[in-house]
Amino acid sequence: MGVMRIGHINLRVLDMQAALRHYRDVLGMVPTDEDHKGNVYLKCWDEWDKYSVMLSPADRAGMNHVAYKVERDSDLDDIKARIRDYGREVEELAPGELPYCGRALRFKMPSGHLMYLYADKEFVGTSVGTLNPDPWPDDIRGAGAHWLDHVLLLCELNPEAGVNKVVENETFFRDVLGFRLTEQLMAGPDKSVKALAFMTVSIKPHDIAFVGGPCNGLHHCSFFLEDWGDVLRAADVMGKNRVKMDVTPQRHGITRGKTIYFFDPSGNRNETFAGLGYAAYPDMPVITWTDDQIGSAIFYHTGEIHEAFTAVYTEGY
Amino acid sequence: MGVMRIGHINLRVLDMQAALRHYRDVLGMVPTDEDHKGNVYLKCWDEWDKYSVMLSPADRAGMNHVAYKVERDSDLDDIKARIRDYGREVEELAPGELPYCGRALRFKMPSGHLMYLYADKEFVGTSVGTLNPDPWPDDIRGAGAHWLDHVLLLCELNPEAGVNKVVENETFFRDVLGFRLTEQLMAGPDKSVKALAFMTVSIKPHDIAFVGGPCNGLHHCSFFLEDWGDVLRAADVMGKNRVKMDVTPQRHGITRGKTIYFFDPSGNRNETFAGLGYAAYPDMPVITWTDDQIGSAIFYHTGEIHEAFTAVYTEGY
Amino acid sequence: MGVMRIGHINLRVLDMQAALRHYRDVLGMVPTDEDHKGNVYLKCWDEWDKYSVMLSPADRAGMNHVAYKVERDSDLDDIKARIRDYGREVEELAPGELPYCGRALRFKMPSGHLMYLYADKEFVGTSVGTLNPDPWPDDIRGAGAHWLDHVLLLCELNPEAGVNKVVENETFFRDVLGFRLTEQLMAGPDKSVKALAFMTVSIKPHDIAFVGGPCNGLHHCSFFLEDWGDVLRAADVMGKNRVKMDVTPQRHGITRGKTIYFFDPSGNRNETFAGLGYAAYPDMPVITWTDDQIGSAIFYHTGEIHEAFTAVYTEGY
Amino acid sequence: MGVMRIGHINLRVLDMQAALRHYRDVLGMVPTDEDHKGNVYLKCWDEWDKYSVMLSPADRAGMNHVAYKVERDSDLDDIKARIRDYGREVEELAPGELPYCGRALRFKMPSGHLMYLYADKEFVGTSVGTLNPDPWPDDIRGAGAHWLDHVLLLCELNPEAGVNKVVENETFFRDVLGFRLTEQLMAGPDKSVKALAFMTVSIKPHDIAFVGGPCNGLHHCSFFLEDWGDVLRAADVMGKNRVKMDVTPQRHGITRGKTIYFFDPSGNRNETFAGLGYAAYPDMPVITWTDDQIGSAIFYHTGEIHEAFTAVYTEGY
Repeated sequence: MGVMRIGHINLRVLDMQAALRHYRDVLGMVPTDEDHKGNVYLKCWDEWDKYSVMLSPADRAGMNHVAYKVERDSDLDDIKARIRDYGREVEELAPGELPYCGRALRFKMPSGHLMYLYADKEFVGTSVGTLNPDPWPDDIRGAGAHWLDHVLLLCELNPEAGVNKVVENETFFRDVLGFRLTEQLMAGPDKSVKALAFMTVSIKPHDIAFVGGPCNGLHHCSFFLEDWGDVLRAADVMGKNRVKMDVTPQRHGITRGKTIYFFDPSGNRNETFAGLGYAAYPDMPVITWTDDQIGSAIFYHTGEIHEAFTAVYTEGY
Repeated sequence: MGVMRIGHINLRVLDMQAALRHYRDVLGMVPTDEDHKGNVYLKCWDEWDKYSVMLSPADRAGMNHVAYKVERDSDLDDIKARIRDYGREVEELAPGELPYCGRALRFKMPSGHLMYLYADKEFVGTSVGTLNPDPWPDDIRGAGAHWLDHVLLLCELNPEAGVNKVVENETFFRDVLGFRLTEQLMAGPDKSVKALAFMTVSIKPHDIAFVGGPCNGLHHCSFFLEDWGDVLRAADVMGKNRVKMDVTPQRHGITRGKTIYFFDPSGNRNETFAGLGYAAYPDMPVITWTDDQIGSAIFYHTGEIHEAFTAVYTEGY
Repeated sequence: MGVMRIGHINLRVLDMQAALRHYRDVLGMVPTDEDHKGNVYLKCWDEWDKYSVMLSPADRAGMNHVAYKVERDSDLDDIKARIRDYGREVEELAPGELPYCGRALRFKMPSGHLMYLYADKEFVGTSVGTLNPDPWPDDIRGAGAHWLDHVLLLCELNPEAGVNKVVENETFFRDVLGFRLTEQLMAGPDKSVKALAFMTVSIKPHDIAFVGGPCNGLHHCSFFLEDWGDVLRAADVMGKNRVKMDVTPQRHGITRGKTIYFFDPSGNRNETFAGLGYAAYPDMPVITWTDDQIGSAIFYHTGEIHEAFTAVYTEGY
Repeated sequence: MGVMRIGHINLRVLDMQAALRHYRDVLGMVPTDEDHKGNVYLKCWDEWDKYSVMLSPADRAGMNHVAYKVERDSDLDDIKARIRDYGREVEELAPGELPYCGRALRFKMPSGHLMYLYADKEFVGTSVGTLNPDPWPDDIRGAGAHWLDHVLLLCELNPEAGVNKVVENETFFRDVLGFRLTEQLMAGPDKSVKALAFMTVSIKPHDIAFVGGPCNGLHHCSFFLEDWGDVLRAADVMGKNRVKMDVTPQRHGITRGKTIYFFDPSGNRNETFAGLGYAAYPDMPVITWTDDQIGSAIFYHTGEIHEAFTAVYTEGY
């Protein structure tokens, strides 16, 4: 019971037509609606709810909010109480205020990122249906992303000032929202500063992750692919479409994911990655990386992080 | 809370040395212990508990029992009460009666298969450890199975006599053990006979499955691989070792798994399969197959089931 | 100099519309023309000549002829002389008699199969072109076959009657056409009967192959795929389109190819396979298989040949 | 007839033990001999001749020479005559002067790189043998390279001074050695400067390649892998062994190869790549890239070349 999975991300884009081409033709999502404010809604072919990406016209790129789905409507009451008991503010929205969703909770993470929880979203079904389904639909476009899988949020980390929003978020997600830590990166001379926290609420290596940085931001949102072969195909699709790449096919040390990173036309970073990596059952021991091995932790093949990967991000409110 | 995952299977083997060669050198498991009764214990490289396969010398092949791990010790009390409330017998074993495990529950599924639940098993750690781990160990042997993933149990199905142990097990696993149905196959002229039930207690497409048959038996136990490329490697390893194959690389319609099947030297069927398939969150709609499409449901590539796949199985108590 | 590669196969089909759907939508070929006799011409996306498959309406399935392309027009004169010196008949056709081709040689292999050689065929270009080309075109359909790669011909083998058309073809292809033997299967009590001969005129493991059987026939024509991942995709496409499968993804011992086999709607067997396997340079030692290992030679994973693979074939003239 | 394939490369290494660990444990080659001068000889598991890499102790990294194998001993006489007719010097070496080889020709390419041709080298056989062979041996180490495939040589290019050793080499290899151009990159304002030439003497996309640069050098020597899955494995092996990487898994536009690049401990660049790419038959039209698309030509996924790829190389004599 409780939080079940990521539901959607609300991304801010500078040019809606360019963004639509990217998320539809390159990433392979299906547009499902558009509202009078100009927001565009899309889902992946293997998702059953109305949307997992909501694109909003804006002057600056970034994330407006991220939303997670809870298992039961009553979970919202329980979590609302837990948030307040934790000493943080939370607001309840009437059905429909969060588009196509039932009543919702709205609150800020300790890092400041805006988050929603909801139990119901309009059901539209996957592209293959539920009766004798094919393993994949005929009309896959581009990279053919299966589903929105997780987000990585940049959180303020300033050890000298005693600020570590990575730890604050981790604690909040663990104690209030029921997430579990799977992997962490410890930095500093005595490895006492937690600079990365990967958390799951399922058995996936991560359902959300937090990385320390100069401020609150969006590092990337990530989409699932089935196999290493699909990672090649996705990278080929990026090449064909002259998409700005950040990372070509590579293995993460953390999560063991096989991955590529690239940017949408507004500059928001996307990931498509393949593989379960491992099954993060609740009894799995936490994996710890030390910052002297940060290269292998992030990019296992090179053991090196290129500067853009840590320096480039968009806003996250 | 509650049941978390499969813990181990206790298989009966006719020739222990041949079995050991198979599970160690072909499947790639690591022997971890042997007891005075001649039982041999093995784990996969990516498992952290002492064993997931317990081989017992016997005169006839098959499964003695299957054991699942619960999240907390107190879950055992809750589940014991639920089993009794459901009107079924359950026994509590002292720590150590189930080898290397804490206290355990022992009971029979409605189908008659013997099942254990436990909360603690001796921890030995994965082959890559938890500090700056490599994605895979250097000394992988054979198919390099990652972990024991699930079992498929043969359950008595005799619609004319009003017997359907598939449904009885499904109900018991749902109402008492907290599993969820992900996929089902409906048979008969009006598609009212449930002949296959796939159930999860995580988000994997299945943590256990039940198939109708003439009696109680073990269809197969299954091990996880990372990728379609590893399925080829596993099949090559079977060819090199002249292992009796049942199914060469193929896609399941149900679960979308990419798979091979083969037999251990005693005749117990093994599967190695790759891929998450899909994420079976609690809000995923149940997938239904009809028996006119049973070929595609099981073997998507051919759309046909070979006779041995349904006719050959070993005993399950 | 001399024979360069396979040029096309002329297949006989019972239902042209069904055949067109198969070769275009399932195999992924591009129709390039149709003539007044109802012959349909198709090419793969990565081929530059007008066609590699010519479908002819017929009452019985099979192969009318197979054609290979020589490097230079003058090669035709040399080879014509060599065929005559070898004591066999050969006919020269005027340009256009072999559709869209220049002058051609027509002759029968010792096995009786009809073969053409030509130096020129109408050039149409690949789907990606020759100026800054993408690695694959955007509009790939179905299995996306890259090119027609080779044929396997059934040749009469009757050791008791002293008939071995496998050996007769091998000798003819070696001495007259410049092919080299790469692998052979030796049968019989003293392994003296050559039952399979794989021959190359490039460095591929085979450009043509001969298998002993009760008569002259077509075992299969084969198309190239890039990778093991494409073999899965091809097999998925067969499942989606309910194509009659013969062999699901598997490894050949001979050639190391990763392969699937299936039938066109008329019953002609097709293969799609991936991988170079090895580089069959002229100095590569010949590989020999003995018929006690014929299972592993053909299907390395199972070590067993299913009956249909040897018993089912279509006519080859 | 004529040149058949690459035979070996003679690399200069600074630390023989470190080099041996790299070529044996990381690349997966098999050491076959060591001579009194301290040269170490290695072959890949799928090669049948004594060695394809000869490591020589030296003070500076680079290539001493590259050797190609001709089909027949008499080809050496023909080629010697053609080289002299072309107006270039060539020397004939007695058997054994080129280690473990028969008589050999020694000459300089127009670029100045030292090259040998030979018809015979000591035969030792592949690791799987020629009688009922497995598709791969049991004891594969590291990346498990199949064979040395080609070299890319840096050739002086200075258009303003009228120097283009790329074109001079291309002409020499075409007119004297029988190679064919498969792909070229044209640079400069009117795309008249040939800056890259890929040449084949088989049907592989390249058996040798030349790239323009400030001087004569070795860009890389390249080894063949079977499949995209093996590229991942190779990159994982590099990560495990902390090998200095240059390029993580990626697709070339030119040749369509799927590749990684890395450095041996002396700084010589290695490539392991998978896939035939296409079949470069003699009638394949030449593919042309223009330097405005050089990024996609080299690294199709990013469309960008990182500086080190063009600026870092070792000496080639």
